[in-house]
Amino acid sequence: MTQGPSTDPGVIDLLGLLAYAELGSFFRLADDAGLAPTLRAKGQLAALAATEQAHYQALRDRLEELGADPEEAMAPFVAPLDAWTERTEPRSWLESLVKTYVGDGIAGDFYARVAGLADDETRLLIEGVLAETGRAEFVTETVRGALAEDPTLAGRLALWARRLVGEALSQAQAVAVQRPALARLLAGGGSETSSDVGDLAAVSRMFASLTEGHSARLRAMGLAD
Amino acid sequence: MTQGPSTDPGVIDLLGLLAYAELGSFFRLADDAGLAPTLRAKGQLAALAATEQAHYQALRDRLEELGADPEEAMAPFVAPLDAWTERTEPRSWLESLVKTYVGDGIAGDFYARVAGLADDETRLLIEGVLAETGRAEFVTETVRGALAEDPTLAGRLALWARRLVGEALSQAQAVAVQRPALARLLAGGGSETSSDVGDLAAVSRMFASLTEGHSARLRAMGLAD
Repeated sequence: MTQGPSTDPGVIDLLGLLAYAELGSFFRLADDAGLAPTLRAKGQLAALAATEQAHYQALRDRLEELGADPEEAMAPFVAPLDAWTERTEPRSWLESLVKTYVGDGIAGDFYARVAGLADDETRLLIEGVLAETGRAEFVTETVRGALAEDPTLAGRLALWARRLVGEALSQAQAVAVQRPALARLLAGGGSETSSDVGDLAAVSRMFASLTEGHSARLRAMGLAD
Repeated sequence: MTQGPSTDPGVIDLLGLLAYAELGSFFRLADDAGLAPTLRAKGQLAALAATEQAHYQALRDRLEELGADPEEAMAPFVAPLDAWTERTEPRSWLESLVKTYVGDGIAGDFYARVAGLADDETRLLIEGVLAETGRAEFVTETVRGALAEDPTLAGRLALWARRLVGEALSQAQAVAVQRPALARLLAGGGSETSSDVGDLAAVSRMFASLTEGHSARLRAMGLAD
């Protein structure tokens, strides 16, 4: 089921972006475990991280199948994704949980939106990666429990969630500018006649629409009415 | 296949020790990835870490099957294993690789030695965990390659390997003193008539014999003749 060199460079970009996002998520979860209050929570984070590693492996394998060099495909996304991680370093266990939930939520919405843009095999892979979550309950219950004990936390955590989204949108814009083939794919075009500026505007609209799911997630954590 | 409250407390101790060793190894590998020189090596470390997480999960599940609280079973081993990790913080990618190889080697020899001491189901589990390695080649090739480029590294890395073993034996002794039921199991006794001091001496002999495999591993890395 391999594809020749005719594969859309936007798809290679997309797979590279998703693969490095999963690898980065693996290391972030493992790192945040230092903030976990119990041995049990540490083990739960390790399990979440291992799931991300499996996703990374599947995406990396798909890049190889398509004849791409996986590390080369990931390279353009290392700086923007690392920048997001560094600019949003959690200072507490709760901030770390909110970051996981908000970050996964945005990633999930993004995956759902882009899956249909790639070839069938890549689409099935992305949908498979997307389906395999299930951490939401663990996070929302822990955050709601903490808010029940100390309602004054809500304001600070809501601001934190807002900052996470803002930084993500900012990095996404930078990526769209730097990777025209990816921007064209995300704009839903794929046609050579689409203009660069038109693609960027379409990508902006897509990312803006991703924030709709964000409000629902804030409510699930008890951080919005 | 659960066992009642009659399970040897030494077996619960052993499973708790192995489970926390795997969880600690997961976090150590994820942490050391910061030292990895390439994106590809980072991904390889993530894969190794995910394997450790799967082992941790299997050992944790077995503790639950036996009716034990997994976190309670792991608790006595958190301090000594964390102490080993902290006292042997690698300062370079090569030191990190040597630590992984030496640490895994000692752990593997230990697993092989103790598997036969537990009940059949636990033995099969430990042997399964043991069989699923395969990182040795990746490490030995990388270390040998680095030595070929700079032979003066050999002395420093050999000292480093010696320190890793010394610190491991020291922590193992502390554990044997603090956990008499485990010491009795490891001494091969299990009989109530064995003496505490006799058990400690037997455990010391067992740990001393583990260092035999260490020399072979040093040779495989090119760190001994």
